[in-house]
Amino acid sequence: MSEILATVLKRVKPTAADIRLVDEVASEVIRRTSEAISKLGFTAKPMLVGSVARGTWLRQDPDIDVFILFEETLTREELERRGLAVAREVAGPAGEEKFAEHPYVTMKFRGLDIDLVPCFDVTDPKMIKSAVDRSPHHQRYVKSRLTPQLADEVLLLKQFASGSGVYGAELKKQGFSGYLCELLILHYGSFSRLVEEASKWVPGEVVDILSYYPEKSEARLIFENQPLVVVDPVDPHRNAAAAVSLQNFSIFVRACQDFLDKPGLRFFFPRPVRLLTPAGLGRILRRRGTKLFCIVFRSPLVVPDVLYPQLRKTERAIVTRLVQEGFEVLRSDVWSNAKSVILVELSVSKLPGVKTRVGPPPNISAKDFVQEHLGSGKCLAGPMVDAAGRVVFEVKREWTDALALIKDTMAQRISFGKHVSESIAQGYRIIEGESLKRLLRERGFNEFLAEYLTRKLPWYR
Amino acid sequence: MSEILATVLKRVKPTAADIRLVDEVASEVIRRTSEAISKLGFTAKPMLVGSVARGTWLRQDPDIDVFILFEETLTREELERRGLAVAREVAGPAGEEKFAEHPYVTMKFRGLDIDLVPCFDVTDPKMIKSAVDRSPHHQRYVKSRLTPQLADEVLLLKQFASGSGVYGAELKKQGFSGYLCELLILHYGSFSRLVEEASKWVPGEVVDILSYYPEKSEARLIFENQPLVVVDPVDPHRNAAAAVSLQNFSIFVRACQDFLDKPGLRFFFPRPVRLLTPAGLGRILRRRGTKLFCIVFRSPLVVPDVLYPQLRKTERAIVTRLVQEGFEVLRSDVWSNAKSVILVELSVSKLPGVKTRVGPPPNISAKDFVQEHLGSGKCLAGPMVDAAGRVVFEVKREWTDALALIKDTMAQRISFGKHVSESIAQGYRIIEGESLKRLLRERGFNEFLAEYLTRKLPWYR
Repeated sequence: MSEILATVLKRVKPTAADIRLVDEVASEVIRRTSEAISKLGFTAKPMLVGSVARGTWLRQDPDIDVFILFEETLTREELERRGLAVAREVAGPAGEEKFAEHPYVTMKFRGLDIDLVPCFDVTDPKMIKSAVDRSPHHQRYVKSRLTPQLADEVLLLKQFASGSGVYGAELKKQGFSGYLCELLILHYGSFSRLVEEASKWVPGEVVDILSYYPEKSEARLIFENQPLVVVDPVDPHRNAAAAVSLQNFSIFVRACQDFLDKPGLRFFFPRPVRLLTPAGLGRILRRRGTKLFCIVFRSPLVVPDVLYPQLRKTERAIVTRLVQEGFEVLRSDVWSNAKSVILVELSVSKLPGVKTRVGPPPNISAKDFVQEHLGSGKCLAGPMVDAAGRVVFEVKREWTDALALIKDTMAQRISFGKHVSESIAQGYRIIEGESLKRLLRERGFNEFLAEYLTRKLPWYR
Repeated sequence: MSEILATVLKRVKPTAADIRLVDEVASEVIRRTSEAISKLGFTAKPMLVGSVARGTWLRQDPDIDVFILFEETLTREELERRGLAVAREVAGPAGEEKFAEHPYVTMKFRGLDIDLVPCFDVTDPKMIKSAVDRSPHHQRYVKSRLTPQLADEVLLLKQFASGSGVYGAELKKQGFSGYLCELLILHYGSFSRLVEEASKWVPGEVVDILSYYPEKSEARLIFENQPLVVVDPVDPHRNAAAAVSLQNFSIFVRACQDFLDKPGLRFFFPRPVRLLTPAGLGRILRRRGTKLFCIVFRSPLVVPDVLYPQLRKTERAIVTRLVQEGFEVLRSDVWSNAKSVILVELSVSKLPGVKTRVGPPPNISAKDFVQEHLGSGKCLAGPMVDAAGRVVFEVKREWTDALALIKDTMAQRISFGKHVSESIAQGYRIIEGESLKRLLRERGFNEFLAEYLTRKLPWYR
């Protein structure tokens, strides 16, 4: 195993040259930020945070995060005004304003991605005004504890999480953040120790680094229904693993189990998904024999952290309606680029005109059940009694055609995400089965559909 | 309600003329049987049993049962030989031999159906050698207790059971025998009292006329899984309601509940099912939109009490296979006359080429599950992890076409009834959907299919 880990580290650890470049750029940005603060006459200080600041960045992934810390006494509006002013001064025309919980600026500088993020300089991290105010505290906590050896272990973990497809806490991914990876290494001491322990994790797992909670059951109660609880050392009321979905938790645990069973580079560097040719797509669709519907519309102009929850909410609304009306949804997924796609795969798209309504057993009154159905004007047969002794009706099924039902759902747009709903209201198409060949031209869609149709845990590819 | 009951009684109670005819015929048969016994030099005595002997026969249903009681010391073979000799002597060429648990003779005489049944004259009914030996004991028990008023109440109950479709203990019907109706009236004292009590029955109900069992729970334990237990007063180890299926029990309880709620003649004399025209059949089938398959074959030459359990066993084998392979069976039924039919109605008859196999959650090893599937050569996708965190494969479905699957099941004939299987081996057809119009010519099939397709508890027709 140590050979494998050494090979991985060689590939993902930044070289001396990489580090020199990144350090130079970071220093330059910090310097410019200080200058801008002075020039604008504000009281604030720049701070390098994140993986570059801690030496835990993956070679292919050097994100430079510069936070601008303002006095806690400012109003939120004033913070945003001053913060953006500084960031604009630093970035110049290369900057691009983004809005997450609050606004920040991104820029490219000497080929590197740089985020300039205004925040409050809060003394007590339990008293933060916005999620970003925590980052300086995370920075200090990790930086003061992470030795260079541990930083290497963090790199291994990050690449392992990335390879198994669960790296990233953004709402599109719902996986493991870089900070979470650092905390796990600080807690378990090494990548291999973590893998060993995590292979035994069960949903509701609690990692309490500072032993803040006397009993794990207490933490489980507070962070209810969260598959993984890693108590944030700078704020014990926060779960540093709150983003991790049950699905990604389970994938990670499986990756650890399988890695222990048979270690390999494939966990860190899985084979890429093979792209679909139009003929190959046709072959796969015929073999599956399912009914694949892609609902396609223009992506609303919001950041991914806003878009993806809305896409999933919309997906859920459509799937729920289909299931309620008796259709079996095999799987579904969402994708987005310039266009957004909600994909729904059904076993069958046409159901009979009749469906069964099962009523009470003999010892419970069936009067209301019978009256309700006889009065509905929708009975094709019944009341009758089935072999188990229950009263049963056969009634007219409202929706026998899935496509018509999807169109009705799209017209009503109940429980859809706000911006997604607005975009759909502007127009959408439903592309079905082999017609999906046309969509393969859409940038990135081929990868998505190929991955969907041949889905495998990455290390099994 | 009393008006309704009076009307019913008027229609179902034999008139003085009916009674005169039946009594004459019965006496004549008894006389001839005595003569035949003397002539053949046997020691035996004829006995009139059943509803005619007790004055509980429905006007339209005067079955004359003459039992020939032989000494207990005879061998079974000798009983059968002598019994048939006597019966043949009485019936002459008009007789027809039948075989139930043991042989008996039926005949028509002056337009009436007469059964001549040899049996052992057993002193203690707990020591009988054959089910028919109980009948003389039932006769004595009921006859000595049933007043003419109670006999009228029995007529009401029989007609009520008949009207709700649950009268008859034969295996084709699995309902309430005449003797069971008599016991229930003896126990509850009147039809209306019975209806009131039975409307509150729950499956596992115990009616213990002689209070043989100190606790009902004890009787429930002995007669396990029987929805209705009516302890036979002449043999407390026997359930006089053993024939009653859960379905018919529930129908009877519903009939009682509905009758109490809104009494009417329709419970005793429901409207007949309207027969199907070919066009009407087409209309109903299109409205249901299901896939209806009728498996048709020549009826094996066995009595209904042998045939029907075999038909149901075969029906169950076919339905079970379909369900195991993922098809949704809406309903199924059997029918028999010169031809036998097993009817199976499916929601859809074509399924996709893929099906989902859900494996263990994250805390349980998935190694065997994954190995088994990866090695099967049938995986279309997977291993993957679903939203609930379980390992999932998508595998090739073995049977995507219900018709092909039914044909395969018919070729294998596993768990089919013996005689039914033999008949099917000689040949069968599968008639589907609107082609069923051809079968409407088959005597009795129209009623069966009409009842199936428009099924309603009879009093709702």
